[in-house]
Amino acid sequence: MVTKTIIVNMKNYAESTGKKFDTIMSAMKPHTNEYRKIVSPSFLDLYKEKSYAGFEFFAQHVDEYDRGPYTGKIIMENLLENGIRGSLLNHSENRVSQEKIRKILEKAREKDFEIVLCVETLDEARNYVKYEPEYLAYEPKDLIGGNISVSTSKPEMISDIVKISEGFSSKVLVGAGIKNGEDVEKALKLGAAGILISSGVVKATDPDRALNSLMK
Amino acid sequence: MVTKTIIVNMKNYAESTGKKFDTIMSAMKPHTNEYRKIVSPSFLDLYKEKSYAGFEFFAQHVDEYDRGPYTGKIIMENLLENGIRGSLLNHSENRVSQEKIRKILEKAREKDFEIVLCVETLDEARNYVKYEPEYLAYEPKDLIGGNISVSTSKPEMISDIVKISEGFSSKVLVGAGIKNGEDVEKALKLGAAGILISSGVVKATDPDRALNSLMK
Repeated sequence: MVTKTIIVNMKNYAESTGKKFDTIMSAMKPHTNEYRKIVSPSFLDLYKEKSYAGFEFFAQHVDEYDRGPYTGKIIMENLLENGIRGSLLNHSENRVSQEKIRKILEKAREKDFEIVLCVETLDEARNYVKYEPEYLAYEPKDLIGGNISVSTSKPEMISDIVKISEGFSSKVLVGAGIKNGEDVEKALKLGAAGILISSGVVKATDPDRALNSLMK
Repeated sequence: MVTKTIIVNMKNYAESTGKKFDTIMSAMKPHTNEYRKIVSPSFLDLYKEKSYAGFEFFAQHVDEYDRGPYTGKIIMENLLENGIRGSLLNHSENRVSQEKIRKILEKAREKDFEIVLCVETLDEARNYVKYEPEYLAYEPKDLIGGNISVSTSKPEMISDIVKISEGFSSKVLVGAGIKNGEDVEKALKLGAAGILISSGVVKATDPDRALNSLMK
């Protein structure tokens, strides 16, 4: 039964865009059905959504505008027309204003479009949980790109955000400090629904093995 | 001989994205070889670059970053890998900081990637012409979306920016106030290399006729 979620953010690494995106997608063969498996390709690879069964595709960003005179923007309706039913938002590498986040979350709810809202602090989580994004992906600033395992060295970080989400439909993903399958297990035990990961899979010597070892 | 340029910015109109992008592209049959014909599709339609011979595809925006950990960004190297050799930048609907523009123009020059730099004032044009973007697309604020023909009512606007570009490799495109073929002819006579247009073609009852009447 699908009860957990893993999202692989492909970012714009040389290892995970263009032809290399196809290499990595072809290599990944998930062993488990307990996970909802989502990848978030660069905009230029999103059109490959139909090519990799077993994986859903989410965008890396979406804007608040409807279709219209908007140059260089990512429109929810256009994503939906292309079979893309969700997007990351407010990633630490692509932060967005409060006002914009609020508009996008409200529009997403109307359109039945799933937002993975990245937050860096508990205050941010408290601020946005009332709009009930599908996922709250927690990336505590201290842990991004570091070597600390959030679930072993800072488990209270996970418990705290899980507590904030209680009473709302949003599920919690741990977005930093996940190094191995044990970290994932502990995060799930603490009430998280899954993880948002990037270089841990994308830049692994064996991305397929890395992916499966996280979902073991 | 190809001596002039027309760029059709598809923006994110309902009339020019997704399946409708294909409808409009299939309808447009240019009668002339004197124009370099460029379209700038939404990011989600860029992958169709190989499907429409006779048209080059430019992105609507590009970022300054190289490949790497950049979520939700548009990377020049990835565009190039997909056969996209240029991009609009700093469109009035997607303005960019000076520092970012400078970095992108320097990178574009290294990579032999063409930037269509949109400017709203002559001061902006003066500021950036030294970086020699392939094109300077002039969209005077008063004229965007209005009913004034720049070439008949404000021809000095074109002469002024053409003067600024003298001694540099950048070519001037007129990006606002172009309503018909006469406007284009006058703009060319005043020293412009062509036009950047959007709704005039995209939202025309007959986009093919609109396109060809501008290039007559």
